[in-house]
Amino acid sequence: AWVQANDFSFSGLHNPGNTGNPFGSAITPVTVAQIPGLNTLGISMVRIDYAPWGIVAPHYHPRATEIITVIEGSLEVGFVTSNPDNRLISKTLQKGDVFVFPVGLLHFQRNVGHMNAVTISALSSQNPGVSTIANVIFGSKPDISTNILAKAFQVDKNIVQQIQRKF
Amino acid sequence: AWVQANDFSFSGLHNPGNTGNPFGSAITPVTVAQIPGLNTLGISMVRIDYAPWGIVAPHYHPRATEIITVIEGSLEVGFVTSNPDNRLISKTLQKGDVFVFPVGLLHFQRNVGHMNAVTISALSSQNPGVSTIANVIFGSKPDISTNILAKAFQVDKNIVQQIQRKF
Amino acid sequence: AWVQANDFSFSGLHNPGNTGNPFGSAITPVTVAQIPGLNTLGISMVRIDYAPWGIVAPHYHPRATEIITVIEGSLEVGFVTSNPDNRLISKTLQKGDVFVFPVGLLHFQRNVGHMNAVTISALSSQNPGVSTIANVIFGSKPDISTNILAKAFQVDKNIVQQIQRKF
Amino acid sequence: AWVQANDFSFSGLHNPGNTGNPFGSAITPVTVAQIPGLNTLGISMVRIDYAPWGIVAPHYHPRATEIITVIEGSLEVGFVTSNPDNRLISKTLQKGDVFVFPVGLLHFQRNVGHMNAVTISALSSQNPGVSTIANVIFGSKPDISTNILAKAFQVDKNIVQQIQRKF
Amino acid sequence: AWVQANDFSFSGLHNPGNTGNPFGSAITPVTVAQIPGLNTLGISMVRIDYAPWGIVAPHYHPRATEIITVIEGSLEVGFVTSNPDNRLISKTLQKGDVFVFPVGLLHFQRNVGHMNAVTISALSSQNPGVSTIANVIFGSKPDISTNILAKAFQVDKNIVQQIQRKF
Amino acid sequence: AWVQANDFSFSGLHNPGNTGNPFGSAITPVTVAQIPGLNTLGISMVRIDYAPWGIVAPHYHPRATEIITVIEGSLEVGFVTSNPDNRLISKTLQKGDVFVFPVGLLHFQRNVGHMNAVTISALSSQNPGVSTIANVIFGSKPDISTNILAKAFQVDKNIVQQIQRKF
Repeated sequence: AWVQANDFSFSGLHNPGNTGNPFGSAITPVTVAQIPGLNTLGISMVRIDYAPWGIVAPHYHPRATEIITVIEGSLEVGFVTSNPDNRLISKTLQKGDVFVFPVGLLHFQRNVGHMNAVTISALSSQNPGVSTIANVIFGSKPDISTNILAKAFQVDKNIVQQIQRKF
Repeated sequence: AWVQANDFSFSGLHNPGNTGNPFGSAITPVTVAQIPGLNTLGISMVRIDYAPWGIVAPHYHPRATEIITVIEGSLEVGFVTSNPDNRLISKTLQKGDVFVFPVGLLHFQRNVGHMNAVTISALSSQNPGVSTIANVIFGSKPDISTNILAKAFQVDKNIVQQIQRKF
Repeated sequence: AWVQANDFSFSGLHNPGNTGNPFGSAITPVTVAQIPGLNTLGISMVRIDYAPWGIVAPHYHPRATEIITVIEGSLEVGFVTSNPDNRLISKTLQKGDVFVFPVGLLHFQRNVGHMNAVTISALSSQNPGVSTIANVIFGSKPDISTNILAKAFQVDKNIVQQIQRKF
Repeated sequence: AWVQANDFSFSGLHNPGNTGNPFGSAITPVTVAQIPGLNTLGISMVRIDYAPWGIVAPHYHPRATEIITVIEGSLEVGFVTSNPDNRLISKTLQKGDVFVFPVGLLHFQRNVGHMNAVTISALSSQNPGVSTIANVIFGSKPDISTNILAKAFQVDKNIVQQIQRKF
Repeated sequence: AWVQANDFSFSGLHNPGNTGNPFGSAITPVTVAQIPGLNTLGISMVRIDYAPWGIVAPHYHPRATEIITVIEGSLEVGFVTSNPDNRLISKTLQKGDVFVFPVGLLHFQRNVGHMNAVTISALSSQNPGVSTIANVIFGSKPDISTNILAKAFQVDKNIVQQIQRKF
Repeated sequence: AWVQANDFSFSGLHNPGNTGNPFGSAITPVTVAQIPGLNTLGISMVRIDYAPWGIVAPHYHPRATEIITVIEGSLEVGFVTSNPDNRLISKTLQKGDVFVFPVGLLHFQRNVGHMNAVTISALSSQNPGVSTIANVIFGSKPDISTNILAKAFQVDKNIVQQIQRKF
């Protein structure tokens, strides 16, 4: 028959995360890992809670564009274009504002208010991935060679090692 | 050079719509029509406000999956699979719940509480389209032939005409 | 080696269907359900037989564009664009005419002659799906709430229930 | 607004072609070149008329799978898998039979009856292209070097030149 | 979690092939058949060694564009556009030159120097396939009917059979 | 007609770049910016020259997988998987070795020999983009806020500013 089996139902409970960490933010993803029925459907969602001045550190999604909307609070957001321009496109968003981070570009968010903030984002893949720069550069397992990082960032090896110890 | 021009910035103000209509809902889309920079990025967003018992009437998106999350209130949502099973998959969602309407399948939402409700959805296309059944069946310009609709729904022509006059 | 396994052969016998039903049409699909080798190839076919004045009731394909050609007879065909225009684009086709129903848009066919008619269509997916409006709106299992449908179509509940009993 | 402009209507008259040529076949395509509205929709159609024993010479479509159905007559059809197996998958089709030529694979058709034959095919691209081997190998403008072709087909140059003069 | 399993590592040793064959070339592919981790990644590579005047006979890739660069030597390369123009686009490449064969189009290479030559190509699929014309036309298993090939190439059957015996 | 215009020819001269810079490498891309005919074809190429101990600093391609092969010399290469594992997958490649960097993942190369090295890579997009971490994090125009970077990398602001001055 013509029919296609789309026979599933799902809902993911959406609890605020614990922002008691060095970044002051909590990320609650809803991807194909949480909802298997999202497979092949090309979309996922994420809720983020921010303590005052909390950040989502610079990162990118290897396989997705992100569209973000502010549910509570005020946030500074920005993304950086690829080489050679490396232009920073940033904006302060209020409740209800919407912003787009194009596929693969580095971006970040920061709560710029004294209250908690909440955002809802959607991503254009059921499995977008996230590469946080501090983690992939300074916290990989095993470490990237200190020589390579010192040359890449044009700093002394001891600064590289100092950051590596944090991640 | 290697560079790609991703040189744009946008934000869409997110005002609640007016729910004073027969359906008791207001839809505020953020697609490529509102944000030209979404072009080719494969995602869009929509906020919906619901008066008590307001509905988003049965409809589908010709080119997108939808993922919905409840910001305020309680909603009954459902989608119907294609032929031959036509199974209704429905659920009552509370604040924070997430649900998926797979690409092209008929779906609807209804506020089942005595308070206003709000949802944020994302869709897997910058230009998802929306075909509301009442409008595309009974409100097309010009009308679909009454003979065809009477046979399709197995009812008298005067019932078809009665509905056509509403749309 | 470079080789790819494309090692299959298939043919589907193409018998006219029985048009002795309320719609006066018979649909014989050839999709991945009939020919497993169509998997990933992005195409399928369907033959439709129409008794005099027989119809294919308003429906859409969640995942495909359709291109139709008339083999025998004369047919009225049409599709309706999505919101807000809901424009009906229709035409009477003669033997040999070709028409396109763009992906996801509602469409229908009707035999407008006193003879049997036959069409061959192709669809841009090996698994296009078909959602017939009467079935997904009034014949889902379980039923969509009568309250929702009465509000959606702006009619009394007893009219909704009358149609629901037919599907 | 949410709307998408799908505001077009088209039909292509479908006249049988003239089979009075060395191959005994006539090809009438309906692609984006004939119907501009097919652009981006990923499908096209073609009618082929065959004189008795007429052929569609070995060819392939650079960008499409083909699904063929026989409207009148009997046809031998076949396709050849890629290296290293080069397996020929062939079948004699009768009226109503359906067969698939997977994307990019070499294939051919031959009328094996004493009557005219007609087929309708659909292709999984609005711009499938067609590369007929005799034309792209022996009839290119300018010619491929005779040295290359003699080595490729392991024959004397005068045989290559003899065929080149025909195309 | 957000993570995606990309947890693999691979390297393929790249030994020159044996060019002691009638074509004077050796092909060493690196596709998903050699590196399973290429699956879904949409790319592959191939090294080709050419004896003096060696050729890669006319062929095409059913599912990929090819981009070629010359590492050692001088090569004549060309591709032929599809019907009806069948234009040959050719060029003699020197060490370091780059050329593109668009998806599905017939192409070939020939060493035009007295030294060995080497090329590296990449293809836009992890499973591009290769259909060599001499093999798919004259060397299929079983053979394509001599009648069909004689008519297709407008030559006597004995010439077809002479070539068939070589492949 | 069926024809498709693929009527272009191109070659890009492939000169070694100047490795006299702090990274000791030179990158020569061949993308749609250099060869307009690559548009829509989904592939591009790049040659890289490395001075002894030269590096290509950690970077990623927002829209492409990369497959790399060593033409001359010995190189350490590696990529880091996304959160939460951040696993470093690395290998020392010799002449002729092939390695794959999956789409969007951070990667780097380093010449580990006392001689110059050369690689040829292909990427699965005609416009892959490249985001070098040092540039997008510490060299954007304008700068990302020092507060955000200090928190993201868990270092004093003066270390952030020291690196920002280099880029």
